[in-house]
Amino acid sequence: MFPYLKEAGKANFQDRYVTKANELLISWDGKHCSSIGLIGAPLSKSSISHSGAAFAPQAIRQALSFYSTYSIESGIDLADVTVTDYGDIVMHPTDIAASQRRIAETIEQVVALQPKSMWIVLGGDHSITCPVVSGWQKQKGTIGIIQFDAHHDLRNLEDGGPTNGTPFRRLIEAGIVDGSRLVQIGLRDFANSRAYTEYGKQCGVTMYTIEEVYRLGIQTIIEKSMQMLSGVDAVYVSVDMDVLDQAFAPGCPAIGPGGMDSRTLLHAISLLARYDKVQAMDIVEIDPTIDFRQMTSRIAASVILQFLKGKKERV
Amino acid sequence: MFPYLKEAGKANFQDRYVTKANELLISWDGKHCSSIGLIGAPLSKSSISHSGAAFAPQAIRQALSFYSTYSIESGIDLADVTVTDYGDIVMHPTDIAASQRRIAETIEQVVALQPKSMWIVLGGDHSITCPVVSGWQKQKGTIGIIQFDAHHDLRNLEDGGPTNGTPFRRLIEAGIVDGSRLVQIGLRDFANSRAYTEYGKQCGVTMYTIEEVYRLGIQTIIEKSMQMLSGVDAVYVSVDMDVLDQAFAPGCPAIGPGGMDSRTLLHAISLLARYDKVQAMDIVEIDPTIDFRQMTSRIAASVILQFLKGKKERV
Amino acid sequence: MFPYLKEAGKANFQDRYVTKANELLISWDGKHCSSIGLIGAPLSKSSISHSGAAFAPQAIRQALSFYSTYSIESGIDLADVTVTDYGDIVMHPTDIAASQRRIAETIEQVVALQPKSMWIVLGGDHSITCPVVSGWQKQKGTIGIIQFDAHHDLRNLEDGGPTNGTPFRRLIEAGIVDGSRLVQIGLRDFANSRAYTEYGKQCGVTMYTIEEVYRLGIQTIIEKSMQMLSGVDAVYVSVDMDVLDQAFAPGCPAIGPGGMDSRTLLHAISLLARYDKVQAMDIVEIDPTIDFRQMTSRIAASVILQFLKGKKERV
Amino acid sequence: MFPYLKEAGKANFQDRYVTKANELLISWDGKHCSSIGLIGAPLSKSSISHSGAAFAPQAIRQALSFYSTYSIESGIDLADVTVTDYGDIVMHPTDIAASQRRIAETIEQVVALQPKSMWIVLGGDHSITCPVVSGWQKQKGTIGIIQFDAHHDLRNLEDGGPTNGTPFRRLIEAGIVDGSRLVQIGLRDFANSRAYTEYGKQCGVTMYTIEEVYRLGIQTIIEKSMQMLSGVDAVYVSVDMDVLDQAFAPGCPAIGPGGMDSRTLLHAISLLARYDKVQAMDIVEIDPTIDFRQMTSRIAASVILQFLKGKKERV
Amino acid sequence: MFPYLKEAGKANFQDRYVTKANELLISWDGKHCSSIGLIGAPLSKSSISHSGAAFAPQAIRQALSFYSTYSIESGIDLADVTVTDYGDIVMHPTDIAASQRRIAETIEQVVALQPKSMWIVLGGDHSITCPVVSGWQKQKGTIGIIQFDAHHDLRNLEDGGPTNGTPFRRLIEAGIVDGSRLVQIGLRDFANSRAYTEYGKQCGVTMYTIEEVYRLGIQTIIEKSMQMLSGVDAVYVSVDMDVLDQAFAPGCPAIGPGGMDSRTLLHAISLLARYDKVQAMDIVEIDPTIDFRQMTSRIAASVILQFLKGKKERV
Amino acid sequence: MFPYLKEAGKANFQDRYVTKANELLISWDGKHCSSIGLIGAPLSKSSISHSGAAFAPQAIRQALSFYSTYSIESGIDLADVTVTDYGDIVMHPTDIAASQRRIAETIEQVVALQPKSMWIVLGGDHSITCPVVSGWQKQKGTIGIIQFDAHHDLRNLEDGGPTNGTPFRRLIEAGIVDGSRLVQIGLRDFANSRAYTEYGKQCGVTMYTIEEVYRLGIQTIIEKSMQMLSGVDAVYVSVDMDVLDQAFAPGCPAIGPGGMDSRTLLHAISLLARYDKVQAMDIVEIDPTIDFRQMTSRIAASVILQFLKGKKERV
Ligand SMILES: [Ca+2]
Ligand SMILES: [Ca+2]
Ligand SMILES: [Ca+2]
Ligand SMILES: [Ca+2]
Ligand SMILES: [Ca+2]
Ligand SMILES: [Ca+2]
Ligand SMILES: [Ca+2]
Ligand SMILES: [Ca+2]
Ligand SMILES: [Ca+2]
Ligand SMILES: [Ca+2]
Ligand SMILES: [Ca+2]
Ligand SMILES: [Ca+2]
Repeated sequence: MFPYLKEAGKANFQDRYVTKANELLISWDGKHCSSIGLIGAPLSKSSISHSGAAFAPQAIRQALSFYSTYSIESGIDLADVTVTDYGDIVMHPTDIAASQRRIAETIEQVVALQPKSMWIVLGGDHSITCPVVSGWQKQKGTIGIIQFDAHHDLRNLEDGGPTNGTPFRRLIEAGIVDGSRLVQIGLRDFANSRAYTEYGKQCGVTMYTIEEVYRLGIQTIIEKSMQMLSGVDAVYVSVDMDVLDQAFAPGCPAIGPGGMDSRTLLHAISLLARYDKVQAMDIVEIDPTIDFRQMTSRIAASVILQFLKGKKERV
Repeated sequence: MFPYLKEAGKANFQDRYVTKANELLISWDGKHCSSIGLIGAPLSKSSISHSGAAFAPQAIRQALSFYSTYSIESGIDLADVTVTDYGDIVMHPTDIAASQRRIAETIEQVVALQPKSMWIVLGGDHSITCPVVSGWQKQKGTIGIIQFDAHHDLRNLEDGGPTNGTPFRRLIEAGIVDGSRLVQIGLRDFANSRAYTEYGKQCGVTMYTIEEVYRLGIQTIIEKSMQMLSGVDAVYVSVDMDVLDQAFAPGCPAIGPGGMDSRTLLHAISLLARYDKVQAMDIVEIDPTIDFRQMTSRIAASVILQFLKGKKERV
Repeated sequence: MFPYLKEAGKANFQDRYVTKANELLISWDGKHCSSIGLIGAPLSKSSISHSGAAFAPQAIRQALSFYSTYSIESGIDLADVTVTDYGDIVMHPTDIAASQRRIAETIEQVVALQPKSMWIVLGGDHSITCPVVSGWQKQKGTIGIIQFDAHHDLRNLEDGGPTNGTPFRRLIEAGIVDGSRLVQIGLRDFANSRAYTEYGKQCGVTMYTIEEVYRLGIQTIIEKSMQMLSGVDAVYVSVDMDVLDQAFAPGCPAIGPGGMDSRTLLHAISLLARYDKVQAMDIVEIDPTIDFRQMTSRIAASVILQFLKGKKERV
Repeated sequence: MFPYLKEAGKANFQDRYVTKANELLISWDGKHCSSIGLIGAPLSKSSISHSGAAFAPQAIRQALSFYSTYSIESGIDLADVTVTDYGDIVMHPTDIAASQRRIAETIEQVVALQPKSMWIVLGGDHSITCPVVSGWQKQKGTIGIIQFDAHHDLRNLEDGGPTNGTPFRRLIEAGIVDGSRLVQIGLRDFANSRAYTEYGKQCGVTMYTIEEVYRLGIQTIIEKSMQMLSGVDAVYVSVDMDVLDQAFAPGCPAIGPGGMDSRTLLHAISLLARYDKVQAMDIVEIDPTIDFRQMTSRIAASVILQFLKGKKERV
Repeated sequence: MFPYLKEAGKANFQDRYVTKANELLISWDGKHCSSIGLIGAPLSKSSISHSGAAFAPQAIRQALSFYSTYSIESGIDLADVTVTDYGDIVMHPTDIAASQRRIAETIEQVVALQPKSMWIVLGGDHSITCPVVSGWQKQKGTIGIIQFDAHHDLRNLEDGGPTNGTPFRRLIEAGIVDGSRLVQIGLRDFANSRAYTEYGKQCGVTMYTIEEVYRLGIQTIIEKSMQMLSGVDAVYVSVDMDVLDQAFAPGCPAIGPGGMDSRTLLHAISLLARYDKVQAMDIVEIDPTIDFRQMTSRIAASVILQFLKGKKERV
Repeated sequence: MFPYLKEAGKANFQDRYVTKANELLISWDGKHCSSIGLIGAPLSKSSISHSGAAFAPQAIRQALSFYSTYSIESGIDLADVTVTDYGDIVMHPTDIAASQRRIAETIEQVVALQPKSMWIVLGGDHSITCPVVSGWQKQKGTIGIIQFDAHHDLRNLEDGGPTNGTPFRRLIEAGIVDGSRLVQIGLRDFANSRAYTEYGKQCGVTMYTIEEVYRLGIQTIIEKSMQMLSGVDAVYVSVDMDVLDQAFAPGCPAIGPGGMDSRTLLHAISLLARYDKVQAMDIVEIDPTIDFRQMTSRIAASVILQFLKGKKERV
């Protein structure tokens, strides 16, 4: 009726020959689900240090609008992919434990509804990985986890409860994942304590430090990790953005030097996504309120796209 | 189905006893219109100096979410008011004149559809006032304009075309408004040139400097202005946010000291809105990309709410 | 031994004729207490919106170093005043209710130890006022509260638990303060909902809007308020910095236009402090992570100094 | 030759009917001098706290380009005024005392060359006022000083040498100005120490606190001050921008609440400039590196224009 | 006359043994031209997304002052090089097409005046490359272009006119450059659409993705590219700074991860400049208003210096 | 007594199994000294360009709190290391030469007190290296210096006195270090002048450019350098953070592209620290006031930890 009116919030410019990556996200209508689901878990009050990671799901969705759907490196176009966006889980303002229960229950419910779907969960801080995996694992049998992180996240629970320093400790202690089926990639000097490295080793956790990443090459590490997890039914990938060097990911609460560069991480994700067993991924620890020009959320959007590309290369 | 899921982008927390001001905006469904329409004109490439005022419509809409609908000063609750949000007019990326034509045409069309509605237009820079008033006036007969501004905006058109320095010159020269029916409030020292003050006076423009605002009081000025415009069919209010002192409105391109404080402006708007003849308002010259914590957009949201309150007090 | 070495963190420059205001703070040594105690309650995970108010106690202490101890307006020098700094209450990383219990218990303990002392509590968000007053009131009998705030903070507890929107509701419902002994100063348009204004009125809360502050004058309001509270045993002053206009206090989470200017607030505090019954004060809702040059914490430091000055004028 | 080429650094847009205020500045060509001279003294290594005030001369000159030459309040156009811009005094990188000597010598030389000129000196921090006045006074006989400042700047010299806390102490002790001919306007609570207030009083310094400014009115204070200085040969005005409230002048190193608003300061300057005896002015303590959108430099530019306007009103 | 005065805007400190790189720029005096010309094309209203790239020419010139003229790697000193700075082309405030015509005409005129000169053009956004090359090519015969860019810039013109997404499409369609003589280096995943990759391939465009850059090495790619262009009369190098990873060039509108590092780009430019056929270069898509500490303009200055160094190595 | 109170400024959260790196620092009590001393030299008024490097000692100490004491790469835990923190040297506000003398005297005194200790000195700008080495060398005999820097810092002293551009010139000219025992690593194109490169070569300075660092590998360069210095009694390492690329160290005054990455620097430090002869290190040229999220101070903290780790590997 009015040729020049568009709904508030829609992009001003549209090129008829370009599909933007954010157009792949279709809000869940309560009925139809695609084979890939996306869901936000905006919890960061659980963080040990001040964090606005609760704003990341929205920042990452928005960052997708900076991208197209076409991978010139591989020739793959994602324009025909549909990602069902289930929205965000509502957090409780003052009961962090309740928020974590809501995450576990909601993930369990959506996965039960769509057990064959792939899942992308946007944190939030790393504490969400415990309830997310708890809910997701119920449909999956034996699982393995590949964690990109500068830190073990194996802290004791007595000193602060279920913080972002504890998710893998909780998953191991709850028997949801066996320590021998957890692979940690990108661990860094002076970012962990000896006690937790030793605890992890006792549990059988596989650990690759950042120096090993550069010595062995990320492709070798991915191959060895997936080989080691060949016995599991499904693999979950957990991407703590602080695995990256602070020059590449300035928007994580726990930034530091000497980390991974973003090309290596993106390559790792595209390699992992080619495996059928890799069926879920989370991206955590991005705080858009302290980022520079949403750089770190832009990398998260790239991680999602490399994941989708890898899934398509697999076929 | 999933008790804790909400659509992406919706507020996390909801208090059952609070209506937020942004809930008053109902996206136009192509059919139903309320008695108040809101529309965005995100044009700022027409600015003489670099401006991101094109981002203001979205910033102002979002700022409404920081407010409730209840005026404790007056006892009025706007919770039953509906504002039809027609969205934003799509701008042409490289043809500024075409963008201005789109504004004029679209406003003409929506006003023709709803000639009895009140209109709130969100700029954009001040250049939009020319096409907006051009389109709006077609249904209105003789009109008057009350302009809050540190500047005349009566520049010649030869030196730069239809910039944000020219809207009232263009309206006068096009015969859409007579100079004698234009009131400028808040004009400031060293913000204008003698040539344009003289041009305005020759056209019969009524001028109140900022010192006169503080000497006479804003209420007197509003009353005198509306009295002077008593012969017109409809009055349009144009709010250039740089009428405010830079301490209050740090997010305008042309900030400076010695301007109006925000309480005075808000009071002026609530007074004006009580007049039936005041039937449209624009808010321009807010650049959210250079603002501090969206302060200036927050004032714009308050201006809208005071306008709606005034309209309700009128009844 | 080394004439030019100073402890890390100490100021580089010292003028022998100047006492800096931060030198008034003496860390509690476990034994000696002065007649004025200061304590930090760095809790902001309880906030409805994202808040770093937990960083305010440290920012305010540091802001004191920007000031001297001498009031040129009154001729009073605070150089002989000692404020015992009890430090900060340790918050629980993931259990907000536990953090609030710790605040209540700690305040109760220190007040029991020093029942005649005056107390200055640095938040944190406004949720801390409930446990602080709960603990403080136990030694005080019937109390009154004077609250500077743009908001009622009388929200229901069902929708979010003990957030920063609820402290006065909780205190009233717990019977710790009677609604008729609560005075709210600086309430603002579109910052509250009708339901809570009505709830407050039903409880007998005295309300002064910001327009009333400017119409009646702050001195009149303070006098009327203290007169109304003449029957209580002790008065608690709660300063939510968002009572100020955003131009003056840009570092509050819920900033907005049309608020109080800082001179008025400082004057109010110095007037209140002259009353013997005014025996405690908190300063809340400053988020140093979003402030501009710690402006808002600087005002908080001024509030403390005006409080101390008023106490000295009293004598 | 090339119709569309302009020199690098020149403004892109020019309106033929507007003279911009920066066009009043004519770089000194080594020969011709107008009746008003402007000179930069970019020294801030002398500051007690970290300061980038050395960048202010350039920031203030640039801020002039945001203004026109026309005062709509008075009807005065400065378009025919010429200000000779002598440039900046070159500071020594590591010898602060040498830098201060260079200031004194250069000012003495230019004033000797043009003893009838009016002078505007752009700091730098407040330490420059001592050498500037020392050099200027040599041609002037008995002088008076009107200082706008939150602080006395009468510190002892033993503790830190000739810092920005000492200029008026040094001028008094050197006998360049008598304490009884120094007026300080805008002094603030907790910004000074009792020892220096007493020292000033002993020297006969006239002091107006900020509360007195609001109680008596700035016009009264200016009149009384100039009356008191009626016996001197020339009056120097020293504008420390931190006399303003931090909301208005966020870019001063020593910002704080409870200060003057910018309209009052601008009014004061225009009143002072009307006196023939007022023959020089400095503007100091603006640090552009920590300002918000060069707000404080914009006020400085307004101060210059009000000074020029006042000088023209005088005639 | 005054030993310590320097012109406003000149550097405070000068080391007698250092030539700064900005001293190589000599403002064109209307007569003398050196063998290298520099010219600014400050147009960014043509950008699809908001851009302040119009500020880049000035920011890049200023960044040159951070550098000396001596290359320690090569032993080459540029101190005897002169670059004629023709200034900036004046843009039309509201007519983007006119601005682009001004660019084409001006470049054509200066190149006609100095057909043997080398040219460095500072954008502005990438839309300037079309008029710049159009004007430059008229004196050059058959030309080739080497484009560093994450994007093709081959968009259709119907959807937005001559934006920064279209320059190479326009040049190909106008027959100014043949697609087979265009080399694109640094193309990135999800930064382009399949339609434009295919369009480019149909036109014979040579494409090197960022992964190919790292697989083959930049030296090989430069050599192959120049070999492929061995039949042309002159080669134009177009440097879109967003070819760099966002960690290295945070100040481009379209930043993203996975891009080139700055050392590789600088090496590429020094290699290209050694070829006699490389006779012009532009640097585009730097927006100084969103950069961090002018990092991206600093790289642009380095690109210029490497270009000049390469030209000198050639001899 | 009060279970939940902690001293103001102490960390809120403590994990019983983690030692934080800042816990290694023990404030000097006037008596006990460990084998490693740390001392701050907060001088930056000596910088040629504006610098807040005086804030770095405190920022670096604070950055240590972001780290643990455990190196997962080497298996070494520093938890049993004690670093005596002697605090900061008090700078003179207006006498830069006096400040430099204080540095020399203080270092001489502490080193005389503890001649066997290792020393870590935190600048401040690079000018501090001259007095620091002067003081330190007195107990050491023949010394060598390994300097990480983009610049020679061999400027003449006539043009600006003892600035941050001169420390190694001064040390050579004073005979404290022989030019043949100075190694400069990371020198960069267009960051130096030919005159100073030649001066350095005449003095016998060993120079490694950044391209040589990447061509030869940092390990080779460290080995060759230490071999070359095999005849000295002690080696001093001076780390000017601007040796790093601006993407990695955005907080140095003289940032630029094409520099070292942080992993290479950290590796170099850990290699150097293994040598017994390496007995002191400074870290200079970090300006926390212009850094992004204290990134550059975080690298400095890592440099300290790699130094301590290397010292422990040595044993
Ligand atoms: Ca983690
Ligand atoms: Ca982590
Ligand atoms: Ca306007
Ligand atoms: Ca205006
Ligand atoms: Ca409150
Ligand atoms: Ca509030
Ligand atoms: Ca002063
Ligand atoms: Ca002052
Ligand atoms: Ca491009
Ligand atoms: Ca591009
Ligand atoms: Ca250096
Ligand atoms: Ca250096």
